[in-house]
Amino acid sequence: MGFWKNLFSGNDSSVSDQRSKFRSVSNSIHNSVPNCDGEILFSSDRDLDLYELEELCDSVGWSRRPIRKVRIAIEHSFVVVTMWHKKGSFKRLIGFARATSDHAFNATVWDVVVHPEFQGRGLGKELMREVIYLLRKEDISNISLFADGHVVTFYQQLGFSPDPEGIKGMFWYPPS
Amino acid sequence: MGFWKNLFSGNDSSVSDQRSKFRSVSNSIHNSVPNCDGEILFSSDRDLDLYELEELCDSVGWSRRPIRKVRIAIEHSFVVVTMWHKKGSFKRLIGFARATSDHAFNATVWDVVVHPEFQGRGLGKELMREVIYLLRKEDISNISLFADGHVVTFYQQLGFSPDPEGIKGMFWYPPS
Repeated sequence: MGFWKNLFSGNDSSVSDQRSKFRSVSNSIHNSVPNCDGEILFSSDRDLDLYELEELCDSVGWSRRPIRKVRIAIEHSFVVVTMWHKKGSFKRLIGFARATSDHAFNATVWDVVVHPEFQGRGLGKELMREVIYLLRKEDISNISLFADGHVVTFYQQLGFSPDPEGIKGMFWYPPS
Repeated sequence: MGFWKNLFSGNDSSVSDQRSKFRSVSNSIHNSVPNCDGEILFSSDRDLDLYELEELCDSVGWSRRPIRKVRIAIEHSFVVVTMWHKKGSFKRLIGFARATSDHAFNATVWDVVVHPEFQGRGLGKELMREVIYLLRKEDISNISLFADGHVVTFYQQLGFSPDPEGIKGMFWYPPS
């Protein structure tokens, strides 16, 4: 089973072109990452080891979620991007992001995570650029997310605006 | 084709129970709406006339969107709720809302609209309560939306909080 197997699933007509474009993005990232022995690769293959994903989420202190529900969430995400550190024949999951969508107008990005050992090298931005690239390629015009206060600046640097035109992100809480 | 045909599609084991529960919600709304000759009904059947939906969106001044893309968006929404004014054998679409989701954790509500002739009677709240009810029934714990400034109070009355714990809603704009 190839690593890039499902990279552009559902768009068979130009898989090879897009695959090579995607690879070249990865190469440029690899070149720009200091102190990184090996390669940084991206994939949109969602056939990943969910225990490895859990380990990644543990590394940034996220609460554990049932693997069964994580599997459903990934299946029903419109875009999934994983980031890998590859060294020789060994590869390790070091980043993840996904987006839900109506496949037409809106997409919302969830679960953006980069392993602490690989933070501070611009990899989170490259991960998000891959998400944006894939969503724009599918003609999604409205990309949104909900950002914790301490990462608002990070997303602003990528072109996201907080509360544009007074629009407020809101969450529902069950009546207590 | 019955009006309530797809009301609880995908959950065949207890359709009749849930259908009657849903109907009784509609009845209670009908009773509480002043100056409304006829009945107010809700449905989660997404097999609706998209030109009638366009007319509804026109009535509140929304920009027109390609019908082809609206169809895709509705197909790929997790929950769709329509609100109807029924009088004799005539029924008219007077409200709409939908939510995208990963079917596990998160849902985001989009395109909430009530026809101006039926605003100010509590029907928008009932429409949103139907959306929340359906999402909670599917065990979605995280319900979010992006609210224009002038409807933030409306959503607060339904239990939505703006920027909870400093979380910011953000939108991406293409570089100009």
